[in-house]
Amino acid sequence: MTHPWHPTPGGVTAPKGFLAAGITAGLKASGKADLSLVVAPPGAVCAGTFTTSVVRAACVDLCADRLAATGGRARAVLTNSGQANACTGDRGLVDSLRATGSLAQRLGLDDDEVLICSTGVIGVPIPMEILLAGLDPLVAALSPEGGDGAARAILTTDLVDKQLALEANLGGRRVRIGGMAKGSGMIHPAMATMLAMLSCDAGVPAEVWQAMVKRAVDRSFNAITVDGDTSTNDCFLAFAAGEPLNPEHFDALEAGLTQVSQHLARAIARDGEGATCLIEVQVSGTARDAEAITVARTVCGSSLVKCAVHGRDPNWGRILAAAGRSGVAFDPGAVALWLGDHQLMAAGQPLPFDRPAASGYIRDRAAAAYLQDDTVLIRLGVGTGPGQGRAWGCDLSDQYIRINADYTT
Amino acid sequence: MTHPWHPTPGGVTAPKGFLAAGITAGLKASGKADLSLVVAPPGAVCAGTFTTSVVRAACVDLCADRLAATGGRARAVLTNSGQANACTGDRGLVDSLRATGSLAQRLGLDDDEVLICSTGVIGVPIPMEILLAGLDPLVAALSPEGGDGAARAILTTDLVDKQLALEANLGGRRVRIGGMAKGSGMIHPAMATMLAMLSCDAGVPAEVWQAMVKRAVDRSFNAITVDGDTSTNDCFLAFAAGEPLNPEHFDALEAGLTQVSQHLARAIARDGEGATCLIEVQVSGTARDAEAITVARTVCGSSLVKCAVHGRDPNWGRILAAAGRSGVAFDPGAVALWLGDHQLMAAGQPLPFDRPAASGYIRDRAAAAYLQDDTVLIRLGVGTGPGQGRAWGCDLSDQYIRINADYTT
Repeated sequence: MTHPWHPTPGGVTAPKGFLAAGITAGLKASGKADLSLVVAPPGAVCAGTFTTSVVRAACVDLCADRLAATGGRARAVLTNSGQANACTGDRGLVDSLRATGSLAQRLGLDDDEVLICSTGVIGVPIPMEILLAGLDPLVAALSPEGGDGAARAILTTDLVDKQLALEANLGGRRVRIGGMAKGSGMIHPAMATMLAMLSCDAGVPAEVWQAMVKRAVDRSFNAITVDGDTSTNDCFLAFAAGEPLNPEHFDALEAGLTQVSQHLARAIARDGEGATCLIEVQVSGTARDAEAITVARTVCGSSLVKCAVHGRDPNWGRILAAAGRSGVAFDPGAVALWLGDHQLMAAGQPLPFDRPAASGYIRDRAAAAYLQDDTVLIRLGVGTGPGQGRAWGCDLSDQYIRINADYTT
Repeated sequence: MTHPWHPTPGGVTAPKGFLAAGITAGLKASGKADLSLVVAPPGAVCAGTFTTSVVRAACVDLCADRLAATGGRARAVLTNSGQANACTGDRGLVDSLRATGSLAQRLGLDDDEVLICSTGVIGVPIPMEILLAGLDPLVAALSPEGGDGAARAILTTDLVDKQLALEANLGGRRVRIGGMAKGSGMIHPAMATMLAMLSCDAGVPAEVWQAMVKRAVDRSFNAITVDGDTSTNDCFLAFAAGEPLNPEHFDALEAGLTQVSQHLARAIARDGEGATCLIEVQVSGTARDAEAITVARTVCGSSLVKCAVHGRDPNWGRILAAAGRSGVAFDPGAVALWLGDHQLMAAGQPLPFDRPAASGYIRDRAAAAYLQDDTVLIRLGVGTGPGQGRAWGCDLSDQYIRINADYTT
């Protein structure tokens, strides 16, 4: 069965009834947009997944607590960019409560229907007078065309905004899913990633929606890595609001949800700090899908693999070494490996690819040329099991070091 | 009780009865020394710990199998540098058997008393004619002063050789422990590290020695990381041979063993590819020591912490973020953090250190100045438990990227 999802403009405001806005409140010294708001229509259910770090920002605690208390009844999410409000002591929670309380009043909502996400420098509190002064202009800017502005206002070191909206006809009815995300460094999500929001204009029971979202996140945001550092602020919030969808279309909806999530996750990996290309690793042959994803993500996260790809060096030994330390058991004698369409190993034996010479060895020119592409595909078969999984990352460049040695992020 | 171990010259040949040699056989295009041999006196017991990667080199399989079969009765270890002989298919084992068999014949030993370690490029087989031709001159060069030469011949991308010998008077008797190691990249040992050998001239029952070695390795080689990539060839071999030591001195011997192992492990971390400084992380307050080591090693391995140290930026939020994702549960409200002598957090609250200003914040100059030292000490208290542990790593520099993007290692 194919799911006829196709792209449509509008990002997070593409689905019916959603409003959004993004403004420059002055939280960032750079003068870039830094305050973002998404408002879902009445009756919305919201599913959230959050960082599993034991050190997490006050805003993450607040989102998780409110969604648990209300059974997923949330209507709005405010995002401030510039200060992460993590490791800020008791003040962090006080500030989060104040910001959402003031916004709830302006939107005519209950306090616990309003969520907040923060991104930026850890350990730095939000300049609250600036944030509070920005709420009136932010609410005034809300519009059904506000998706672009909202997507830009959540960025930090990102080079590009990350959005997608898909549309499908499900049983004669138009359904849309929109999403936006940010993230460039400290990307190794464990349950969700550094700020992503998703909207959908089909009504789905909260528990069904939460289960769908969890599965989609495991196959998208939880399968990317930029630098192996899980953030204190990871937060993915997905809203669904609209006429109830016939359960026979739930599978189709989940396919669209997964597609939007994977698009945003890939966009985060490609925009990884200092990255010059996207790395996709496909693993098959494990007993379970989760194991394949673990192997794929370990290869994606290997500094040595990332450096080799950056240097456009088909250094496959590092791929095998990374897979071997992933914690997933497999028989090295059964391994098959491809770089793009170029097979490098079969049944655990290297194919004639490296040709030892007196003073080194000659690399296969075709494989090296393949590495010039914007997306580098590594395929690894580790056995005969039915498990398969994909993960995404990026290369590791001098630029990553400079970004993170010279700036406080 | 203090253990009066003090340094003595000679490296791995400092203990009585050990012979070693290192020569240039021609395995490396660079012309540097590339073939190393250590021979232990009759009656030696050998304890080994090896990579836990499921992808491991043929030589590692051979060492582990022989030590298991003989109950730790080994007399010699040959090391070839330049080719890792990992992922070389069936040929890898055949070559390891041939090399050790030829050497055993020349030394008058049984085949299974001779071990082999290989280090270099993964996926490249050993040029066997070159190695075999090197065995006669290697054996001819064996000497009780050969420790230095042997230590140099095991290096690859290392900038310096890594050796230490300690001496103590235990019950009126002189006991010496010597060790050598190599490793610079693909350093995140899981059971042992990329080639280290240790010698001791006290007789210890094999099972006591093996247990001592395991504990010492957990507190040294298993507590370092350069790039998070566990090698396919990690191998630590420790020989003990001599008059039986009175069991009342076993604790003292283990203290010396741990000291030599930690010295070599720290030297590997400091010589990490592209490193400009050593990072030591001390963690206390966990329930068990192993948990403290896990937190310490996670902080040491964080790309973002490593970049911040490289940039000499006291960016403590990244330290907390890394600790939080280590998988060890702790209460963020109980955290205390020091950079050298500068306390940055107490009871989970940041101390007046970052001073938010309109366009950023001012860093404590003393803490930034501290980061200029050759060793950066991070101390983290995460609770009131008795557990404590240390780990060592190095900063992440542009040079690491260049080394690993431009060269096949």
